[in-house]
Amino acid sequence: MYEGLKGFTDFYPDEMAPRRAVIDRIETTARRYGFREVATPALEPAAMWTDKSGEDIVDELYDFEDRGGRHVTLTPELTPTVARMVVARQQALSKPIKWFSTRPFWRYEQVQQGRYRELYQTNADIFGSSEPEADAEVLAFAADALTTLGLDGSEFEFRVSHRDILGELLRSFDDGVDVPAAVRAVDKRAKVDEGEYLDLLADAGLDYGQAREFDDLLLAGDEDLTALTDAADSEELAAAVDNLRAVLAAAADFGVREYCDISLTTARGLDYYTGVVFECFDASGEVSRSIFGGGRYDHLIEEYGGQPTPAVGVGIGVMNSTLPLLLQVHDAWPGEGVETDYYVLQVGDTRSTAARIARDLRKRGHVVETDVSDRSFSAQLGYADSINAETVVVAGERDLANGEVTVKEMASGEETTAPADEFPDEHDRPTYDDFA
Amino acid sequence: MYEGLKGFTDFYPDEMAPRRAVIDRIETTARRYGFREVATPALEPAAMWTDKSGEDIVDELYDFEDRGGRHVTLTPELTPTVARMVVARQQALSKPIKWFSTRPFWRYEQVQQGRYRELYQTNADIFGSSEPEADAEVLAFAADALTTLGLDGSEFEFRVSHRDILGELLRSFDDGVDVPAAVRAVDKRAKVDEGEYLDLLADAGLDYGQAREFDDLLLAGDEDLTALTDAADSEELAAAVDNLRAVLAAAADFGVREYCDISLTTARGLDYYTGVVFECFDASGEVSRSIFGGGRYDHLIEEYGGQPTPAVGVGIGVMNSTLPLLLQVHDAWPGEGVETDYYVLQVGDTRSTAARIARDLRKRGHVVETDVSDRSFSAQLGYADSINAETVVVAGERDLANGEVTVKEMASGEETTAPADEFPDEHDRPTYDDFA
Repeated sequence: MYEGLKGFTDFYPDEMAPRRAVIDRIETTARRYGFREVATPALEPAAMWTDKSGEDIVDELYDFEDRGGRHVTLTPELTPTVARMVVARQQALSKPIKWFSTRPFWRYEQVQQGRYRELYQTNADIFGSSEPEADAEVLAFAADALTTLGLDGSEFEFRVSHRDILGELLRSFDDGVDVPAAVRAVDKRAKVDEGEYLDLLADAGLDYGQAREFDDLLLAGDEDLTALTDAADSEELAAAVDNLRAVLAAAADFGVREYCDISLTTARGLDYYTGVVFECFDASGEVSRSIFGGGRYDHLIEEYGGQPTPAVGVGIGVMNSTLPLLLQVHDAWPGEGVETDYYVLQVGDTRSTAARIARDLRKRGHVVETDVSDRSFSAQLGYADSINAETVVVAGERDLANGEVTVKEMASGEETTAPADEFPDEHDRPTYDDFA
Repeated sequence: MYEGLKGFTDFYPDEMAPRRAVIDRIETTARRYGFREVATPALEPAAMWTDKSGEDIVDELYDFEDRGGRHVTLTPELTPTVARMVVARQQALSKPIKWFSTRPFWRYEQVQQGRYRELYQTNADIFGSSEPEADAEVLAFAADALTTLGLDGSEFEFRVSHRDILGELLRSFDDGVDVPAAVRAVDKRAKVDEGEYLDLLADAGLDYGQAREFDDLLLAGDEDLTALTDAADSEELAAAVDNLRAVLAAAADFGVREYCDISLTTARGLDYYTGVVFECFDASGEVSRSIFGGGRYDHLIEEYGGQPTPAVGVGIGVMNSTLPLLLQVHDAWPGEGVETDYYVLQVGDTRSTAARIARDLRKRGHVVETDVSDRSFSAQLGYADSINAETVVVAGERDLANGEVTVKEMASGEETTAPADEFPDEHDRPTYDDFA
């Protein structure tokens, strides 16, 4: 007997049904915004990550040498792949390019509660617009996806930050500060104690006084962005603050400003982000970890050899992520278990009639099962119950001799007869009520 | 600039749209038959293949040692994974177990025309029934999927064979014949010349006279199965022939007998098949390679440590397989390119109105884009054209001052005005015709 790998999940039908419902709603929302589906390779040249990504992600790669001696890796995230694809057809693609996809990614992380090595994401990205409307559209898509899933606006919040605000504020203290390292420190702020956080900022080049002042300013900025521009005389900082304000103003026009809180201590882990970044959290605090996040990454396409192409996107963890937890906490998780419209039960040699009825019901779009195991009446009825069949149609030899089938409503147990050759006939979804 | 790996395909939106339509129709058909969706890991212990599979598949594994020293592999096919999953919940799952899923698999094959290293399949399997109705239901699902895709019954054929017929016929010549090797020879019959085919059968333990006679009998059996039972006095062979007849009789009741031809030289490549096997071909012969195939594998669950559990299934290659070729040859390929219901065009500072209209149209389920790039009228109109927008709604400053928007039908170029605050209002899908 084999066991699957640690950190990898088998999703059986009962577990898959609610997840498929969630993915369907997210993808439907993405399509309505004009995001277009793409499909991308699971395996890529490892250099796409080892050349540019932060250490954390490189340490977690599922990389190996393939049979042709290439250093390849299972993809830990989508962004480098879509960047590569944009570069490959840069001229032919009309801008803005708006893509989405749902697929697994792989990271060799320590397996623990809620951390998996195979994780599924729906990614949505816009390439080719540096305008605040593009950032706001990503926020609007993400918020609409959540409300479409049945969440109320009071049940989640987007903590919105800005990489250039963080960077320019850091530089205003000391031009020599290692901005990526300091940003990574901010990203770890909620996960480490204060001393360690200040140490990390010190490692990045701030002295402890500056580190404290920097952190105070982030919190003051959350209340009023003017605190930042008052504290530092930097045109670049002022431009970054203006950009954040413009994104939030566009978000207001797009109907999603109410979900957004300025939260400058939100930084996101990956190095390639540039402008606005955001993370979604459970507003009730019951789910403490981030639900998902996204942001702007204006330099990545150029780094991948393309023409300068601004970009902004979001990756929503689905399947085995914190999103199911958020939906469960707020009673928005679709029911577990499978649904079945009809079970056509055979008693005696009635296969041809049962098959005809099943076929006609399937043509009308229904989920229909019939016996493929040559089982007894009661075994079939038990199976029909196990698949939550709404209606059981009994094709019995004796009934059929009278030209009849029995129609049984499983919830109530009520049953009646119906003319066999009128079933389903003109009825689109015949039930007990139509014949009782 | 990076390049993707050889044998891996990037699917851009224009290419993905028809493939998504195809997958949707196949999955919808599977759901109507009561197949339930599962999701499965991309990575498994390599032993699941190296212990049991034929050499061909083991030679093509993307296997490697992970960071924890485990010998793992990208999965080249689904069957061992679902077998593992059935074994893991053998007691809890009610039978028959009917599962489907669509996902990529990976094989390190020689890359050539039509051969990829990443291939996508929709798999559908039934576990727990040895009855001919289960085989026939798999055939019926596959045939229904193809007709739902728009193919006519005359445009494809299922070549149906039976592993036990092949095996028992071989044993009737010589009890010591290496049946798996001889079956692999039959599988290669159409791909090699006659001499090589006979050599392979000889390697498996037949002499050349027997090999010729065996091959003649396979062809005679295609015309009339009685030729086989007349030639060999074997109860096991007679039972296998009866089973094939019973499957075809069930297929007749299920409405799909017409698509099935007996073709005993069809063998399927994998060792684990037992009873009925089949391959789908282009009836016109224009696509010469197999479209997809499936069959019964009654021993695999037991070999994986479970209780004896008969099983039968099919794996339909989608995305980058021969199926798109078949559909193209028979004019059943969904159109390439993306579709868009509305583009809401902004002229001047009309973002809030445009956003309100876009939001209202999206709520009605439409695919809607609006400007996120601060572009000119003509640039926006060009973009709307590039995404095949059906209707463009122009929110212009001057029109809005009069309470109006312009509604432009892109196909005809006709346009008219509509009251801005009635758009879309009570209209479910407002178009030029509603206001002209």
